[in-house]
Amino acid sequence: MLKRCVMVAALALGGTAVAQEPVDLDMVSRIRQEAFHNSQVMETFSHLTENIGARLTNSPRMAEANAWTRSKFEEWGLANVHDDAFADFGRGWEFSSASVEMLSERVQPLHALPKAWTPGTDGPVEGELVHVEIKKLADIEKYRGTLGGKVLLLGEAREYKRGTEPDSHRHDATSLEGLQQFTVPKTAAADRAKRVREYRERQELARAVNTFFAEEGALAAISISSWDNGIIRVAGGGSRKAGEPVGIPELAMIAEHFNPLVRALTAGQTVRLRVNVAARFTDEADQPGYNTIAEIPGRGRKAAEIVMLGAHMDSWHTGTGAADNAAGVAVMMEAMRILKAVGARPERTIRVALWSGEEQGLIGSQDYVARHFAAYPEPTDAAQKALPASLREPTGPLQRKRDYERFSVYFNMDNGSGRFRGIYAQENLAAMPIFEAWLKPFHDVGATTVATRNTGSTDHVSFDRVGLPGFQFIQDRLDYFTNVHHTHLDTWDHIEPEDLKQAAAIAATFAYHAAMREERMPRKPVLAPK
Amino acid sequence: MLKRCVMVAALALGGTAVAQEPVDLDMVSRIRQEAFHNSQVMETFSHLTENIGARLTNSPRMAEANAWTRSKFEEWGLANVHDDAFADFGRGWEFSSASVEMLSERVQPLHALPKAWTPGTDGPVEGELVHVEIKKLADIEKYRGTLGGKVLLLGEAREYKRGTEPDSHRHDATSLEGLQQFTVPKTAAADRAKRVREYRERQELARAVNTFFAEEGALAAISISSWDNGIIRVAGGGSRKAGEPVGIPELAMIAEHFNPLVRALTAGQTVRLRVNVAARFTDEADQPGYNTIAEIPGRGRKAAEIVMLGAHMDSWHTGTGAADNAAGVAVMMEAMRILKAVGARPERTIRVALWSGEEQGLIGSQDYVARHFAAYPEPTDAAQKALPASLREPTGPLQRKRDYERFSVYFNMDNGSGRFRGIYAQENLAAMPIFEAWLKPFHDVGATTVATRNTGSTDHVSFDRVGLPGFQFIQDRLDYFTNVHHTHLDTWDHIEPEDLKQAAAIAATFAYHAAMREERMPRKPVLAPK
Repeated sequence: MLKRCVMVAALALGGTAVAQEPVDLDMVSRIRQEAFHNSQVMETFSHLTENIGARLTNSPRMAEANAWTRSKFEEWGLANVHDDAFADFGRGWEFSSASVEMLSERVQPLHALPKAWTPGTDGPVEGELVHVEIKKLADIEKYRGTLGGKVLLLGEAREYKRGTEPDSHRHDATSLEGLQQFTVPKTAAADRAKRVREYRERQELARAVNTFFAEEGALAAISISSWDNGIIRVAGGGSRKAGEPVGIPELAMIAEHFNPLVRALTAGQTVRLRVNVAARFTDEADQPGYNTIAEIPGRGRKAAEIVMLGAHMDSWHTGTGAADNAAGVAVMMEAMRILKAVGARPERTIRVALWSGEEQGLIGSQDYVARHFAAYPEPTDAAQKALPASLREPTGPLQRKRDYERFSVYFNMDNGSGRFRGIYAQENLAAMPIFEAWLKPFHDVGATTVATRNTGSTDHVSFDRVGLPGFQFIQDRLDYFTNVHHTHLDTWDHIEPEDLKQAAAIAATFAYHAAMREERMPRKPVLAPK
Repeated sequence: MLKRCVMVAALALGGTAVAQEPVDLDMVSRIRQEAFHNSQVMETFSHLTENIGARLTNSPRMAEANAWTRSKFEEWGLANVHDDAFADFGRGWEFSSASVEMLSERVQPLHALPKAWTPGTDGPVEGELVHVEIKKLADIEKYRGTLGGKVLLLGEAREYKRGTEPDSHRHDATSLEGLQQFTVPKTAAADRAKRVREYRERQELARAVNTFFAEEGALAAISISSWDNGIIRVAGGGSRKAGEPVGIPELAMIAEHFNPLVRALTAGQTVRLRVNVAARFTDEADQPGYNTIAEIPGRGRKAAEIVMLGAHMDSWHTGTGAADNAAGVAVMMEAMRILKAVGARPERTIRVALWSGEEQGLIGSQDYVARHFAAYPEPTDAAQKALPASLREPTGPLQRKRDYERFSVYFNMDNGSGRFRGIYAQENLAAMPIFEAWLKPFHDVGATTVATRNTGSTDHVSFDRVGLPGFQFIQDRLDYFTNVHHTHLDTWDHIEPEDLKQAAAIAATFAYHAAMREERMPRKPVLAPK
C-alpha cells in the first residue's frame, strides 16, 4: 500500500536494467516527524546507561536490561516479546570498586580498574611489586616459589603516542568518497594449522598462568591500559567458565601510572602497593545468555517473512556501555517505537534483536542465527569443538532451517554513536540501488553513501557468514576510537542526541521498506568456509 | 674572553645602528656537545617526578625537592647554594588516596581527586548526595539546616566539548610567523574599584561557604573537573592559611562521572556516595616558603652583576608536576651543570632560582625580587595589604635595592616541556637583535623566532613588573593545554627527552652570553602602576 511513491533512478549494474526501487515518501515523512520531533531515543539511551549502567554479558545488570527492554517493548505494543536463551555462555561477573595505592617509595593513588571475570581481593591487600614477564610456558619456572604475597606487574612500559589527529571525526565529502574504493582481497594464507596451534598455545598459557599465579599466592596483577591519556581500556581476563582457573585479581592501569612502576622496578626501587578490588562472580555454574527479541508482526501472505533490526546490548564493565552499544540499542528500539507510533502495517514481520555476548565473539547473534536460519554442522571431534568457529576445519555444507528462505535482511548498529552517513553493501551489489533509493530522503541529514565494501566485527557478520543479507551503517566516528571504545569513558556525555535521532529515522525507514518491497533483499552467493 | 667569535648581522632599529652582537661559537659547540651527548637532564627530571613526585608548595615533598636540588648543585660545584625563605606562605598539605563510590541507585566507582588544602574524611563516610548551588551569600540560607551528613554536588553539568584539533601541537613556519604580530593593547578600563569589590566578595563568599559547610556537618563536596575525557584538572580549595576556615573535604570529579550525578538528582533519584580521602595539613602554623638558589660566581669587575635562570619547582598535587614544571627545573639545572661541565668562567655571576609558591601567584619569585631588586612600597592600610598586588592602589614610586642596577636579565621556563622555538621579547626591542644573534646557532634545532609580544603568567613577570628584563622562551605546546596543565596526567610520559636537551643547551647559551656581553641587557621603561 505504497502511497505517493517516487521512483528513484537506479543504477544499471552488470548490463542488467534494475527496476526502480519504490520509496514511500509519505511514510518517510511520518517517520522523520516522529523521530525528530517526538523522539524518545534519549530516554531509552539514558535509562540503559545511567539507570542500569554497564551491562556485561550475564551480569545482573544485563538481566535488568533484558527485563527493562522487554517492558518497553510491551509498553509500545510489540508482539512476541521474549528473552531468547543461548546455551552455556558462562558465569556472570560484576565489580563495585577498585583502588590501587603506591605506598612506597613514594605515596600516590594510582588509577586502575579490574579485568572482567577476575576475582576480587576480598578487602585490601598489600605487597611488594615484582615485574613478571611470561611469554611461554617455560617462563613460569623462572618465577616458581617467588610470587607469594607479591603484586605482579605484567609486561613492559609503552612509549606515549602523541595525538596528531583531532579526537573527534566526522566524515566529509572526501572521506565519504574514499569509502567508494574497494580493495580486492588477498588470498588468505593456508595457515589454519598455524593459527590453531597459536590459539591453543595462548589458551594453554593463559590457563597455566592463571593456575600458577593462584597457586603461588600472588595478591594481584597489573597490566597497562591499551590507550594513553589516562584512559582505562580493558576487557576480560580470568575465565567466565565455571571450573576453569580464574587466576588472581587483575587490573588495567593508566599508562601514566603503569610506566613509572616499570621504571621504578628497573631502577631497583622497592615498590609496595595496596590493592582493593570488590568484584564477584554472580553465578556458581555456567548460565545461558539472553538476547531480547520483539516483533511488529507482518500482515498477509508475507507475514512469515522476516526483516530484522538489531544491536548488542551487552557491554564491557568500566564505562556505562554508552556508545558501545546503548546507542545502537536505543536507536533500534526507537526505530521499532517509531514504526508503531506512525501506525506502520508492514507486510513482512519486523523483528528486533538486542544481542548479548557480542563482546565475547558475537555469541548471542551467532547462536540465534544457527537456531533460526542456518549453520555449518557442529564438529563431532572434541578438539574441533573447543576451537572458535573461525578456526575449525570445514564440517560440511550449510544446514538451512525453515526460516532461511523466509529471511530478508538484517540491519545492525554498532560503530559508536555517530550519525549514519550511508551503509556498507558487503559486496552485495544488487542491494546497492535499493539502499540508494531508501537513503535519498536522508541526504539532507548527511546519509548519502552506499559503499561496496565489507565491514566486520559485529553482529551482522553472524548473518553474512551463512549467506544472509546482514548490513551495518556507515557512521561518523566521533571519538569512538580515540576515547570511548571499551574504556571507562564510554559514557553518556560522549554521544550526540541528534545523531541518535537521525539514525533511528533511517533504521525505521530501512526496516519498513524492506518489509514492504515486493521481493526479499537480494542475496550474494554463500562462500564455502575454507 | 670570546674566542672565534662571529659577528651576526643585527637589525637596525629606529634609525639607530645597533652594534653587532658577539657570539662565542666555540662555547656554543661545547655547550651543545655536553647538552646533546652527555645530558643528565632526564636523570634530574626523573628524580623530581618519579622519586619525589608532586611538589605542592610547603608540602614535605617540596622540602625534599629543595634538599635534593641543593645536593645536586653542591655535587656540581655550584656556589652559594641555599634555600631562600619567603615569609608567611601558609601551611603545607598532602594527600595519599581518594576514592568515591556510588552506592545507589546503581553501584559504580567514580574517579575524583581532592582539591589541595581541603581536609580529609578521616576514613570512609557515606551519605546522600544533594545538589548545592551557592552564587552569593544570601544563597546560603536556602540550605541552612539541610546539609548535615550529606555529600554536596557543587555546580551544574557541563556539555562535552569535542576535540576538533590534534591533542599535541608543534609550531610550524606559519604559526611561528603568526607570533610576529603584536596587538596594540586596549586601554585598561579604570575598573579597579569593581575588581576589588568582586575579589572581596569572592573571598568573603568562599570563607562563608567553607564555614557554613563545616558547621552544617556536610561530609564532602564534589565539583566538576575543568576538562573532559576523564582528565582531572584541579587546583586548591579550602585555605592554606592557619586560622582560616578550610571547609570540608572537596574533590574534583571527571566530567563523565559528575554529569550523570547531576542528571540523577535532577531526575529525582536518591544517590548515595561513599567518600574516602586521606589528606592532611602538614603544619599547624603558617610557614615560610623556600626557593632554592645556587650560583656560578662571576670573575673580575662584573662579578657583582647578576644573570639569572629560573623555573618554579612547586607543582599541583594530582600528577607529578612533570611538564609543570619539573621540565623547567630540570632544564635550568641542566643549563647550570653544562656551564660547569664545559668550564665556563662567566664574567657576571650566573644564578639559578628554583621558585616555590608560583602556582599560588608567583609568590616565591615576587618576594625574592622585592627583597633583592625592587618593589613598590607595601601599603600601610590593612585592607590594601589584604589585596593581591595587582589590585592594590599605587603606593608610591618603585623602591630599588642595591642589586637593581647590578641585575642584567632573567630567563624563565614554564610553558610545558616542549622545545624552545625562540623567545618573547616582552616589548623590549633593544633586546631583540641580541636574542637573534644568540639563537642563530640553534636554528638547526628549531629555535628561530624572536617576537616582540609579551607572555605572562609565570615568574619572569615578577621581574618585568619592576622594570627588570625578564623573559620566557617560545615553546612547542605539545599536549600541555589539552592533557597536562594542572591535571593528574602531568607525568613523566608526556614529555620528550630531546626537547629538554635542546632547551637546556639554549638556556645555557643565553645565560653564558648574557654573563659575557659588554653591557647589561637593555631595559625598557618602568611603567608606573595604575
